[in-house]
Amino acid sequence: MRYRHHLFICENRRPDGAPRPCCAGRGGEAVRKAFKDELRRRGLQGEVRANGAGCLDLCEQGPVVVVYPDGTWYVGVRPEDVAEIVEQHLIGGVPVARLLAKTFAPPAR
Amino acid sequence: MRYRHHLFICENRRPDGAPRPCCAGRGGEAVRKAFKDELRRRGLQGEVRANGAGCLDLCEQGPVVVVYPDGTWYVGVRPEDVAEIVEQHLIGGVPVARLLAKTFAPPAR
Repeated sequence: MRYRHHLFICENRRPDGAPRPCCAGRGGEAVRKAFKDELRRRGLQGEVRANGAGCLDLCEQGPVVVVYPDGTWYVGVRPEDVAEIVEQHLIGGVPVARLLAKTFAPPAR
Repeated sequence: MRYRHHLFICENRRPDGAPRPCCAGRGGEAVRKAFKDELRRRGLQGEVRANGAGCLDLCEQGPVVVVYPDGTWYVGVRPEDVAEIVEQHLIGGVPVARLLAKTFAPPAR
């Protein structure tokens, strides 16, 4: 495995007035920056990579982060959650339960 | 696992004259479109997702595609390779050997 953990952070931006929200509008870019900074601070750049990504289709729950190869989906992630995810999950191996996606179903309309 | 296979296709675009090449300049966007079309054609949209991604750091070998959760890295992917990857790997379970990344080391400068 090239990276012990490979994170994809949605930074998709929809036009103003689009029917679905977007992770860029909810702070996805700041979340990615927070991961980059925290991974550098912990010396993990070679083992863990934080990538921007297009739409991960949980738009209403964003910002969305998926971690591979384990396939952990986080939703509603804020920059202030990042240190906890790095410490508890990426170093300690225990996902942060309060941020896990509980449903992948589209919202009722 | 939310998706049986989750593909991330680099669409990173660097400015003209940047020292490293970029996957957008090498056709990454067309590769992603080819995956979207082929997955739809095969009725695989619910099981396999093709996402755009930022820089995957194999710029000199692009366009780059990484497939999770298996962690398969493809390089030099062209739209005409996509049907083979879908058929042989994503359906058949056997990665396409001739497109696998052989090195993750940065190029000599």
